[in-house]
Amino acid sequence: MLTKDEMPACPVATTVRMIGSKWKLLIMRNLLARPWRFNELKRDLEGISQKVLTDSLRSMEDDGIITRTVYPEVPPRVEYALSELGESMRPIMNSMEAWGISYKERIANT
Amino acid sequence: MLTKDEMPACPVATTVRMIGSKWKLLIMRNLLARPWRFNELKRDLEGISQKVLTDSLRSMEDDGIITRTVYPEVPPRVEYALSELGESMRPIMNSMEAWGISYKERIANT
Repeated sequence: MLTKDEMPACPVATTVRMIGSKWKLLIMRNLLARPWRFNELKRDLEGISQKVLTDSLRSMEDDGIITRTVYPEVPPRVEYALSELGESMRPIMNSMEAWGISYKERIANT
Repeated sequence: MLTKDEMPACPVATTVRMIGSKWKLLIMRNLLARPWRFNELKRDLEGISQKVLTDSLRSMEDDGIITRTVYPEVPPRVEYALSELGESMRPIMNSMEAWGISYKERIANT
């Protein structure tokens, strides 16, 4: 969670500070559907390194947009899910999806 | 512009491929208001390097979301502006702004 002092003045910059990276945006996209395990995310996000995935998830957890739940099984199962704050970003992802759909239609028609 | 073969299957990934970086998102935010010159952007985007700004602008130009216009003055004036395709991303930036505003209100009330 950002403190008031760390918060950029511009609201777009505030949002960009939290999800302004390729991988965080793709992680958000996945978690909007359901909770995911680390290794599932690693497999799905083609080209992401272990370190970048770990760092991205930790940063999103610190910012309060995702939760990390450890289920006491053998071996322990760790699941990442959107928090209510993360869930409130759904309109952003919807607008990105809508733009991507209309862009793909545009390209298909050229 | 992406060819059909380079296009990710997922529409969110298509959008992320074009503007999925902190700096590209902040450049978009600026250009949504009006055209900007290179040095103006450099001054406004605190912490961006000359190289990253140049690369980001070139990549956005290649993707067809911004235009680069050289005015034949002495010294030549170069202005970056949103193309019609870039302008069609306005709803994405609006949803990021709306989220940032509501997040800042939430933090202010805690």
